[in-house]
Amino acid sequence: MIVHQQVLEVATSGHGSMHDLTDRVQQVVQSSGVKQGTATVFHIGSTAAVGTIEFEPGLQQDLPREMDRLFPPGEHYAHHQTWHDHNGHSHLQATLLGPSLVVPVEQGRLVLGTWQQVFLLECDVRPRQRRVHVTVMGVGDQ
Amino acid sequence: MIVHQQVLEVATSGHGSMHDLTDRVQQVVQSSGVKQGTATVFHIGSTAAVGTIEFEPGLQQDLPREMDRLFPPGEHYAHHQTWHDHNGHSHLQATLLGPSLVVPVEQGRLVLGTWQQVFLLECDVRPRQRRVHVTVMGVGDQ
Amino acid sequence: MIVHQQVLEVATSGHGSMHDLTDRVQQVVQSSGVKQGTATVFHIGSTAAVGTIEFEPGLQQDLPREMDRLFPPGEHYAHHQTWHDHNGHSHLQATLLGPSLVVPVEQGRLVLGTWQQVFLLECDVRPRQRRVHVTVMGVGDQ
Repeated sequence: MIVHQQVLEVATSGHGSMHDLTDRVQQVVQSSGVKQGTATVFHIGSTAAVGTIEFEPGLQQDLPREMDRLFPPGEHYAHHQTWHDHNGHSHLQATLLGPSLVVPVEQGRLVLGTWQQVFLLECDVRPRQRRVHVTVMGVGDQ
Repeated sequence: MIVHQQVLEVATSGHGSMHDLTDRVQQVVQSSGVKQGTATVFHIGSTAAVGTIEFEPGLQQDLPREMDRLFPPGEHYAHHQTWHDHNGHSHLQATLLGPSLVVPVEQGRLVLGTWQQVFLLECDVRPRQRRVHVTVMGVGDQ
Repeated sequence: MIVHQQVLEVATSGHGSMHDLTDRVQQVVQSSGVKQGTATVFHIGSTAAVGTIEFEPGLQQDLPREMDRLFPPGEHYAHHQTWHDHNGHSHLQATLLGPSLVVPVEQGRLVLGTWQQVFLLECDVRPRQRRVHVTVMGVGDQ
């Protein structure tokens, strides 16, 4: 049984910026030697999220805009009383989308649809240096 | 250590159709021989989602209707500019609910509440042939 | 390879009550002997959810209030026809936030941000005795 772990660094450009991580996660899978198993993708922190989406220019606009419609930046959140950093909406967007994603691995490859990519969405109000943790677990050639 | 993988095929009847996958996922767990571990349920594609719910007729109406309230079918999405397929809401609903679910396995059975089932929700605008990938990972009788 | 499973009991105080599970999940990781792997946190049942958040007093108000804004308690849900228990919003909130979370484990510790904690959110309309299932899977000292 193999457990292989690696952290991907992602420099974001601020609120609503989206990043396609598919190729980098696939590279971690290849480095791991795992042929059958899972890849757990986890964002370390509370104001960005990971998930899957068809990574095309339209949805790269739609997703952050719609998350801002669900939890608008301008509203009052009790979180602001605590830190005065005015990113309550960032926390709520990130919590709802979620920090973790588990993708199956078969024959040494992520099992994804043709129009399904792994993304990171920056929800915070400024550019951040993000760390996405990847754990590949499973068996190699047997 | 055992890694067992299988794809479930699901024929959906179009936008908002819900499917109870619990028994079929349980059958994959039994085939695997895993007694303690996890079952990762993953929808391959970007316009349907998996999760857990009390699978009864009321909630089978409520969930798709409420997802349509959050991301309405009739709105303008930038995604439509890309493909002209008018399913921007389908993508957003699927991304927010998420493609992956991990259920614990104990004594060879999925650990679920009595009123908690594993579902697939079709978010696309037409009937689709869906593939749900199941990875059971863990140990057998020791 | 190690698979270690344990159930955490949580007594909630009713709709919207939030509970920080981080230390208790960390204790399960320590008991497991796993040094590298994952911890799968799964709520058994259909009216509470788990996730990660900065666990501070402001967001403990914001998250349940905003979930009530997305799926309001007072609305009509078809679920009420089935059971007459008037918790349709509880089911929808729990399904959208999701029952499962996978956190990486490195050097015998959960990999989390400094301001990122594992929470349970009670979505049901009354206090409940909750069971959160933790599966730690991976390798020990090698």
